[in-house]
Order: sequence, then C-alpha cells, then structure tokens
Amino acid sequence: MVGGGEGAFIGEVHRIAARMGGEIELAAGVFGTNRESSLRCGERLYLNPARVYPDFSAMVGGERALPESERIDFVTVCTPNRWHFTIAKAFLEGGFHVMCEKPVAMSSEEAFELKKIIRQSGKMFALMHNYTGYPMVKQARKIVTDGVLGELRKINVEYSLGWLAAPNAGKQAAWRVDPKQAGISGCMADIGTHAENLIQYVTGLTITEVNADLATFVEGRSLDDDGSVLLRFGNGARGLIFASEVSTGEENNFILKIYGDKAALEWRQQTPEELIIRSNDAPIQILRRGWPGTGEAAAKASRLPAGHPEGFLEAFANIYNAFAESIRTGVPGDYPGIDDGVEEMLFLEAIVRNSGSGEKWTKMGC
Amino acid sequence: MVGGGEGAFIGEVHRIAARMGGEIELAAGVFGTNRESSLRCGERLYLNPARVYPDFSAMVGGERALPESERIDFVTVCTPNRWHFTIAKAFLEGGFHVMCEKPVAMSSEEAFELKKIIRQSGKMFALMHNYTGYPMVKQARKIVTDGVLGELRKINVEYSLGWLAAPNAGKQAAWRVDPKQAGISGCMADIGTHAENLIQYVTGLTITEVNADLATFVEGRSLDDDGSVLLRFGNGARGLIFASEVSTGEENNFILKIYGDKAALEWRQQTPEELIIRSNDAPIQILRRGWPGTGEAAAKASRLPAGHPEGFLEAFANIYNAFAESIRTGVPGDYPGIDDGVEEMLFLEAIVRNSGSGEKWTKMGC
Amino acid sequence: MVGGGEGAFIGEVHRIAARMGGEIELAAGVFGTNRESSLRCGERLYLNPARVYPDFSAMVGGERALPESERIDFVTVCTPNRWHFTIAKAFLEGGFHVMCEKPVAMSSEEAFELKKIIRQSGKMFALMHNYTGYPMVKQARKIVTDGVLGELRKINVEYSLGWLAAPNAGKQAAWRVDPKQAGISGCMADIGTHAENLIQYVTGLTITEVNADLATFVEGRSLDDDGSVLLRFGNGARGLIFASEVSTGEENNFILKIYGDKAALEWRQQTPEELIIRSNDAPIQILRRGWPGTGEAAAKASRLPAGHPEGFLEAFANIYNAFAESIRTGVPGDYPGIDDGVEEMLFLEAIVRNSGSGEKWTKMGC
Amino acid sequence: MVGGGEGAFIGEVHRIAARMGGEIELAAGVFGTNRESSLRCGERLYLNPARVYPDFSAMVGGERALPESERIDFVTVCTPNRWHFTIAKAFLEGGFHVMCEKPVAMSSEEAFELKKIIRQSGKMFALMHNYTGYPMVKQARKIVTDGVLGELRKINVEYSLGWLAAPNAGKQAAWRVDPKQAGISGCMADIGTHAENLIQYVTGLTITEVNADLATFVEGRSLDDDGSVLLRFGNGARGLIFASEVSTGEENNFILKIYGDKAALEWRQQTPEELIIRSNDAPIQILRRGWPGTGEAAAKASRLPAGHPEGFLEAFANIYNAFAESIRTGVPGDYPGIDDGVEEMLFLEAIVRNSGSGEKWTKMGC
Repeated sequence: MVGGGEGAFIGEVHRIAARMGGEIELAAGVFGTNRESSLRCGERLYLNPARVYPDFSAMVGGERALPESERIDFVTVCTPNRWHFTIAKAFLEGGFHVMCEKPVAMSSEEAFELKKIIRQSGKMFALMHNYTGYPMVKQARKIVTDGVLGELRKINVEYSLGWLAAPNAGKQAAWRVDPKQAGISGCMADIGTHAENLIQYVTGLTITEVNADLATFVEGRSLDDDGSVLLRFGNGARGLIFASEVSTGEENNFILKIYGDKAALEWRQQTPEELIIRSNDAPIQILRRGWPGTGEAAAKASRLPAGHPEGFLEAFANIYNAFAESIRTGVPGDYPGIDDGVEEMLFLEAIVRNSGSGEKWTKMGC
Repeated sequence: MVGGGEGAFIGEVHRIAARMGGEIELAAGVFGTNRESSLRCGERLYLNPARVYPDFSAMVGGERALPESERIDFVTVCTPNRWHFTIAKAFLEGGFHVMCEKPVAMSSEEAFELKKIIRQSGKMFALMHNYTGYPMVKQARKIVTDGVLGELRKINVEYSLGWLAAPNAGKQAAWRVDPKQAGISGCMADIGTHAENLIQYVTGLTITEVNADLATFVEGRSLDDDGSVLLRFGNGARGLIFASEVSTGEENNFILKIYGDKAALEWRQQTPEELIIRSNDAPIQILRRGWPGTGEAAAKASRLPAGHPEGFLEAFANIYNAFAESIRTGVPGDYPGIDDGVEEMLFLEAIVRNSGSGEKWTKMGC
Repeated sequence: MVGGGEGAFIGEVHRIAARMGGEIELAAGVFGTNRESSLRCGERLYLNPARVYPDFSAMVGGERALPESERIDFVTVCTPNRWHFTIAKAFLEGGFHVMCEKPVAMSSEEAFELKKIIRQSGKMFALMHNYTGYPMVKQARKIVTDGVLGELRKINVEYSLGWLAAPNAGKQAAWRVDPKQAGISGCMADIGTHAENLIQYVTGLTITEVNADLATFVEGRSLDDDGSVLLRFGNGARGLIFASEVSTGEENNFILKIYGDKAALEWRQQTPEELIIRSNDAPIQILRRGWPGTGEAAAKASRLPAGHPEGFLEAFANIYNAFAESIRTGVPGDYPGIDDGVEEMLFLEAIVRNSGSGEKWTKMGC
Repeated sequence: MVGGGEGAFIGEVHRIAARMGGEIELAAGVFGTNRESSLRCGERLYLNPARVYPDFSAMVGGERALPESERIDFVTVCTPNRWHFTIAKAFLEGGFHVMCEKPVAMSSEEAFELKKIIRQSGKMFALMHNYTGYPMVKQARKIVTDGVLGELRKINVEYSLGWLAAPNAGKQAAWRVDPKQAGISGCMADIGTHAENLIQYVTGLTITEVNADLATFVEGRSLDDDGSVLLRFGNGARGLIFASEVSTGEENNFILKIYGDKAALEWRQQTPEELIIRSNDAPIQILRRGWPGTGEAAAKASRLPAGHPEGFLEAFANIYNAFAESIRTGVPGDYPGIDDGVEEMLFLEAIVRNSGSGEKWTKMGC
C-alpha cells in the first residue's frame, strides 16, 4: 500500500476490505510522506519494519529485491490524486499489479498514457470505483442488460454530501479542493466521477454531450464544491448528474434512477440492499440482496443471508476479491479498470471546459 | 364551474375540495362543450337545470340576470389551458371572482393582460397551484422565512410521472400535448409550472436565468413530455428542475429539496405529512403535521390530529377555504394569484426559447 | 347528528366525510348537552335553528312531525359510548336509519338487544369502524379471500398512540377513561376494538380464545390505558393485539400484519395507500392505491389517481358513501354493522374478564 | 474454532468478523465431525494441517503442547447448542479464553455450572449475542441509561423470519428443531434469546414473569417454530416478544421499541444505522451512526463516516474486537458474557414451562 497513513480515511477502508476475503495480506507499504508516522502506522499493522519503505521508489526496488515468493503481488495506491499516475506507473513497470484509487490521474493525457503502460506491462489494473461492488448494483446492471427496462430514456443520478458546507472541513477536505493535489476539479473529481462511472457500469451507455453548471459556494476555494450536469447519451437518452459536497445535512446520499420505456429502477447507496423496480403495468417490486428474484452476479458478491445487512465495506471488499481472483487466474474480472479511468478524465475535462464557457453542449472525448 | 365535465379528472377534484369546508355550494356550471353531457353532469350534481348553461357567455349573462343573493359568488375555470384567459376575463368583467386552473394562460402577454383586468375589476383571483395548500409546504415556507436554513444555496425539484410513457394515454393526455389546447409546452406547462411555483412559494427567490433541455420521447408528440432545467437565482443560489411525464412507473413523485448554508429541508408530495430537516450539527428531524414543532400556518391548514393522514384533496380544499375567506372578508389570502401566473408564463417562455437555441443561459422575464 | 358539538373531534370528521360524496346534507342535530353551544354549532353549520333540537327525543319527535320529503333519512350518533345504545334505539324505533360510532354499546347485552331492534325496525344500521373504509384495507381483504396468503397462521396488530401518556390529556381524553361514559374498558374500547374489527373485516376469522394483560400506567385512571392480548382463532391461527394510548410519541400508529403459509401482508394506517406483500419465493411487492395490481373493491373506494394521497377522511367518507347507497337501494353494503358491534362487545368483555383473573385463556362469546 | 465447517453459515461469519479488526488470526480448528471435510476446510483457510484436529479434546491437548507463543489465545465455539457447554468447559479448563455461540447451554443447570467453571478458570468468556455489537444499539442503551426516555413502561420486540415456513428448510434448519441438538426450544432458543438479550442489554431491566404462547405450525416438528411472550419487569414495565421463524416473507426483521413516560425509541436491525426517537413534545429525531447527536459508545463501535453503511458483520466484529481487547488487557469489556447465558436459559425454561401449562404467569428464575 502506498498512502493511507495516519489521519487518512480511505486507507483503512482499503485494508479492512482487502483482508475481509481472507485471501489478501498486507506485507509492505509507504504510509504517507512523514517517515516516523509511516513507521508507526506499519508497526500498528504488524508489518516487518524493513518493509515500511521511505517512498514508493524504494518500495518498488525493495520488493523486487525479495525472492518472488515473498514479494508483494500487487500494490494499492490510495494517495491524493496527483500521485496516482506516477506511482501506478512505477509499480506496473516494476512488475506489480496495481489497485488504484479514483480518479485515475490528473488528466486524460495521463490516463491514456497509463493505459499504454498497463498494456505493455501485462499486469492487472483495477480502479477503485467501489460502488460498482454492491450486489444490488450488479443486479441493476443485469436488469438493464436483460432488457427489463426496455429502451433507456432518462438516467438521473444524485450524489449529495454536506461535509464541505462550511469553510473548514479538515485535512481530508483540504486536498480535495486544492488544484495541485486534486487536479482540475474538486467535487466532480471526488464524487461526480463515481456518478459517471456508476451510470456507465450499470447501463453501458456512452455519454456524448454534457452541459454543466459547476459552482463554488464556499469562499476561498479554487475548485468546484457543487455541480449539475445535463447529459446526452449515444442512444438518444438524456441524463442528469447532481453532485454536491455542500448539501448541508446529507451524509453520503448517492442515488441512481434509470427510466426505460418499459420499466424503471432505483438504487440508493444508503439502503444498498434493495433495488426498486417500477412500471406502469405492475405493482412496485423491491428486489433484496439474498432474496428470490435477485440473481447470480449479486449472489456472488454477497456473504450473508437476506436481512443481515451488508454495506460499504463488503462492496469495497468485492472489488478486492475480484481483483485477487484475477491475479490468481490471470483473467480480468468484474471491476472497473483503466478504460473507466480514461472515461472519467474525459468526462471531467468536458464538464470543466463546458461550465467555464458560454457553450451549451460540449462533446465528450475529443 | 366551467369545465370539469364527464371524463375530466380535475373537475371532480375541484368539486370535492370546494365542498369539503362546508362554505361553498355548487350552484351553476358549464360542464364541457357537449350540451347533453353537460346537462347529465349537472343533474348528477343536483343542479337546477336552468343554471346548467350552454356556454360560459350564457353563464355570465344568466347569473348576472339573477338577484344578487342567488347568483354565484365566483366561478372555477377548469378547462384546457387555451380557454383559461378568455373565460376568466369574461367572468371578471361580469363582476365575478375567479378561481382558475394553471397555467393561467397561453402566453405571458395574456397573463399580463389578465393582471390588468383583475386590477380593474376589483375582483379576487386565485390560481390553483394546489401543492401550496399542503400544511407541510406552508411549514417549509415558514422555516425558510425564519432563516432556519441560513442562506439558500441549492434548490432541487423533481416532478416525475409515468402516465405518458406510452403513446396512447387517453383523453386526459391528448390535450396536454396538443399545442392548440395546451400552448407552447406540454410537460413543463402541466407539471413544470407546479415545480416553479412551489419553489417561489416556499423560498420567495427569483429565478434569473434558465438553461433547459426539453425532450419529446414519444414519437408523434408536438410538445415536450420531459425536461430538465438548470436554474440561477437572484441571491446566487442555483437550482434544478427535473420534470417528466414519461418516468415509467412513477405515480406523482413531486419532491422539493432546499439546501442552505445552515440546514436543508425535504418535502415529498407522496408522503405529504412530513418535512425532513437535516443539518451538519444535529440529528435528522422529521416534522409532522399536527405535531409539536410544526407551526400555526400548517395548523390552520389542517383538520385532523397527527397520524390521521390528510392528503391531496385537503390541500386542494385549503386553497378553496382561503379563497372563500377572501371573498367574505375582501382581503387576499394565502393562495397563489395572478403574479404567480405571470411568473409561470415567463418561465415557460424562457425555457422553451432556451431549449430550442444554442444559448446556454437565457435570462428570465425579458 | 347527535353529538359532535363544540370541542368534539370526531363530530366534525363525520360532517366532512358525510358531505365529501355530495350525496348527504346535514339537516338537523343535537350538538351536545349544552343548549346554547348546540345552537351556536348549528348556526355555524347553516342549519335551520328549528331543527337544532334540545335533545335526541325531541329530535326523533320533531323530525317525525315533518313531511316525509323534508325529514332526515338517517342519524349519526357520535356521543360518548354510554349513549350509543339508547339513542340508536330511539331513532330506529322512530323509523330512521342509524350510523353509530363504535363501540356500539356498553355491554354485549345491549348489543344483542340492539340487534333485535334493528331486525324489527327494518332499518339500516352502520357502525363507524372507519379503518375498514380504506381502499388498501379492502384490497387486503380481497387478497386474503383469494387465498393469496394461503392458510393463515399469525395475525399481529399494533395500535399505538401517545396522547394519554401524561395525566392531563384534555376533555377528549377524560371521558374515555371514565367508566360511566366509556364502559368497562378505556384503551381497548377506544382502539382495541378497531384492531379486533380490522382483523375480522380482513380475514373473516373467528377469535375463539383470548389471553390478555391490560394495564393502567397513569395513576388515577380507573380504566386500562394500554394492553396486550394473545389470540387464538378458529382455524388454528394465533394472533396478537398490542394497543396502547400511552405509547409516548406515537401518533396513530395502526399496523396490520397477516402471515399465511404462502405469503404475508402488511398495512400501515399512516401510509395507507400501500400494501406490502411478502413471500419466501418472490421479491417484495408494494401494491398501491390506483395502480395496476390493485383491484376493484379498492378502486371503488378511491377518488384520485395513484400518487395523489388520499387519507383518513376519504376512508371515513367511503363508509358514508356505502351507507348512503344502501339507504337509496335498500341493500346492505360494504360497511361494518351490528354483528361487528356484538363481536366487539364480546371481545371487550372477554379480555377484561381474562385480564382480571388468573385464567390463562378465556373463551370468547360465552 | 470448533464448528463452522462446510455447509455452516455462522462459522464463516465468525471468521470474517474476527479478522476484520486486524488483531485476530485463525490458527487452529475442528471444522465439523467429518474429518475429511474438516481438513478441506482448514486447507481452504490456509491453516497448518497439523492444527486441524480430529476433535475438540485433541485440540485442547494439541494446543497446550505448543510453546505458549504459538498456541491459540482463545477458541470460538460455534457448534449446535448441545456441544456449547462441553466444549467451552474443556477449553476453559485447558487454560483458554472462550467465545461461545448462543444459547450458552442446554439448561440453566449447565449455565450455572459453566459460570462456576469460568470463575475458577480465571479466563475470559464472551457469548455471541451479536446484535449488541451494533453502534446504534449501544446508542440506545446510552439513551435509556441517561434517562432520556424517563421511566420505562413498555418494551416490545419483534423478531420475524420466514425461513422455516415450509417443512424442508435445509440442514441449517434441521438441527434447530431437533431437541437433541437444540434443547428444549426451537425458535425461542434460536431467536427469542436474541430478543430477551437485547432487552436486557439496552434497558438493564429484569424480567420477573412471563406468559407465553409457543406454537409449532409446521407438522412434524418437535419444537416451537413461533411464539409470543407477554413480559412483566421488576420496575412495573410490561413487554411483549413476538418471535417467529414461520413469518413467511420476512428476512431478519428484528425490531426493538421502548416506550418511557418521556420519550420512546425504535431500532430496526434491517436499517441498523438509525435510531428513531419520539416524544409527545417534539419532532421525531433520527439519530444516525456517525452523525452529531450520536455518542461515544456508538462511535467506538464504528469504522466509517455516516452514510457509508455498516452492517451485520461489523456488529459481529465489534464483539470480537472488544473480546480481543479484553484478552490483551485482562479487563472484561462491552460484550455479553455468562450472566447473559444464565439469564437466557432461565428465560427459555420459564416460557417453555408456562406455555405448556394452564398457568397464566410464571415467575422467572425459580
């Protein structure tokens, strides 16, 4: 692991999720840029201090120097955005598989470059869009693929958090609105990309044009802390992403609604165990994880019987489990990868460009 | 009453709502353009057949010919949109108060003209934006006015229905997507105006600019059956209206969310008895109609103790009750009027103009 | 109407509900025992003062003295319990149909006696168990009758209110815990009978034995303000009624759950528009008033399209509408009657007897 | 670990939960009575085959023979009920701490005996009543202890599952209704004890008397698969447990409601992240895990920010984490222990005795 030191939130999530399946053991790491803090962190994790490295280059070198049976199989990159590309590159080129936090890079250029490196390295690469790990998200994808909704017409996503509603929201918040650490976008890079990725994971549709209104509500911030984006898709569908980190009082309110000409579905991250199916011809159906009517992809991503709530960590762990299986088998699995990374960078660039211009619709990906 | 004959939905709603308070009695009417059907309707309503008139002009004349103590006090106009202005004008000029269905007219020009006529007539005029009649909507307005939410930042409204998802949705549907009957907009005139009006009723903010994407998903329709509109407000707040009549499986899913820098509120028409208050500093609060913490304006619009559900008809009746009180007292009350009508026409014209153009933002009201 | 004067809650509910259908007009009444207050009340209701009578005997006489075309068709009895029998008897014997509040009488003896009187009078009699008027309760009954749930095994009802949690809960509360006004039971007579009646309406099962634990939590009360009752039914099913008026913070939380060997249903009065169907073989189904999957009996008791919430008053009005139709046609309709009244008195007597004894199970109805 | 072999559900839950905290490593075990299957299971768990023992006695002996630094610290007993006492005894007497599944034993006699053995051994003992591990259950306990609810009056618990609604429900089900494996009770031993334990954990009240109606709905079963129990508590409060494994369509519907004279709380296992607080004087409050208004005990049992759902496994892991801390520090912590075990056996014996008799109320614990 590189990143995830003291005071980090997502690093510990990665560690719990990785060990949940019983197949992955943390063996080495760089836990932040402060050496002492990193060592303390390694000790708390029962690591061999020799494998708590001063920086990521030392780690690549140190691990390569170990006998193959002892060295790490893959690295998790969970630093602020600006380091994702550089560190992923180093490990891939050093012969290691990589699990990387999103967004994958600072620009689409970096993302395309990384795609090339991955191809050349022959290594596995996973991008931690953890929400795709939820069983009922997999069920949603199945339902769309099976044509239950008919032709898709409208896709609405809301991702609301209130944590940045006030000016001082702590260390976690600081780097997310600092262009040097986060890149060209704040809120949209942090959570808008989850929205965009979830849409693509579940529907497979291509966003062709965007019309965005990004906003910065808290004075002194250089990046967006809120935004709305109108979407047009390749098949003629339309969509809407509302993402905000200044939605006072909201916790992690991530909602996906998809309307087709036959039926519609709704999934809510805060009650992730269910999927609501509506149509004009039948009663509302609530599909539940672990219950009849919910299929195999969801079942495979599930540990407990229905009614025994699984949540965020389990979804996160599902990405790790699938990645571990890929490493064992050499076959890519059901988790986001570099193509999702390229897509998310093109999306970010398109909406930032559009929002700053007088142009109504901006084509994606050019 | 003019309109609301056989096969109409909203006419019967007006009648039930009007009689609920025990202060209003239906005495005369024109129930559609078919004379026989209108008479049948009048008979079913125990009306004197002499006061079931062949058309609205005859009704104005006939009622004026009666002694003042017998003639109607006001008329309800619940025809398709194209007749609202003409009929309202006739009754106002004939000396009667008017309760009118929304949208108030076919254009802002008509709306401005009607405003002038109302002023000259000295008569009362109410516009049936019935959702403003809900007790917890009144409570929402109170909360905003009291500054509980702080400075408003973001206002999101969703109004989703599925009833027009398929091509043939019956007589009710047909006129709503016929430009001759409905005007320049379908979905937005029908329900988008409710969204716009609710925002203005609750927040008092002025929409300054719109950026719209109207759509027609069902082939053969000349007007929009779906649309998303980004909003900018005078105080710097931003907003979002998603209105659709092709949201398969949705019943009448009308949701208002307002985020301020201190707190946020959420109201859902399908569970109208509660208001959710969120903030970053305190547990979620659920205010309920009839329960401590809910104030006087809501209480005045309420008949039953908490837990005995009131709904759509009661909200509708609240508009009638307030209008009846106005007629008795000569003092305008808590119900939408012609200014709301002017506003909604300017809104419709701005979004239709914007959506058809390449212009990103269109200023409202010019 | 007899009862429902100033300060009464349920009288005004009866009046709104009765006029909602447009078929019933209030023409005469006795609005409480205070003559002045009763006259004021009559005036507020636009009644002819000559038909605001000093007492119920005067009203029977006065109305009989009028020409048949002018006199009332039926009377609503909404006094405290102790007067139900006496007044109903007087009107029935005077040749009027009767709508009576529950519980029907002070004892099963009175109830049996009233049954005889009704039979002899040839008049219609309805008992206002208003919850049976909800469309989705009718749908629940249909589902049970159709065998969708299979053989019924368990029926659980909760009816929780908090309004009597503190000692002084006002005039409405006072008579309900006064044995002279309310009879042998407080909470169970007031709301436990609704629970018992709802079970019988929906399932048609006969309660054969009861095992009760009635309680009085607030000092100084002579009657129960809370109670739990275990039930056994004729078909081998078991059940459970929890009714309480000291459930702090609850509004009018009335829940019915029925488990069969094939499926189960759940209905909640505070969200009365839906019915939840669960089984071990299929996703959860939410049936909604006005939506496909919900049948004719519910549709007949419904005024608005799905998503336009109907509530308590509409359910109440459904009882009135059905009663009015019965009076017109001479055919009893879908509303509770004297048999429900007899049943509820036997139930009250059985649980009061059981709770005061050391006897585990008490047979009902003997 | 003893138990939790192939086909077991709860064993894998124990393993995931134990490793979630990063402090516990599985080192040895007996995974069922079939030797081959047990070895396969050990291999899948990357155990040293020498430490996959033929039976629990061999395991006690084998581990004691290892150097202290290598041997296990504690054992988890997750076999069918009949073995709990015997195995726990063997490990305690062998000098190991014990984590044991509930119910603790086959009789109160065994439970009292085990209590003596634990005292003599000086070893730590935890009883896996996992629902006490939920953060919001800890919050509920805090709220009661702080007196927020006032004097407790009524405690209602429902624990409904549908999994045994049909005769053949698989291996997991079979032993639970076999008296030789499960003891004197089926449903009540399996889930009724969770209800009883949760009441005691949250309220600290003592059940003094029970009045039970246990039932066996599916033919051919020797033990109860459903039951209702009326409760009386030492402080005068009354209560109600409804537990059923034949509640068709229910998943794991475990609900706790506590009514005091000042306020009331409600917790639902299927939405475990929130706690509803109601009173007669204020709006409803929804306390959420991780959100202001929720206190320290809950925070300590929490890993993620609010809105990132934690669930069943995390609650389970909280018991393990607290137990691991106890082992490290030598100080008993916040998890159920042998006193809870004694209590649950007395409860089971009392309700089974009561239900089979004509006695209305049976005193507990004599």
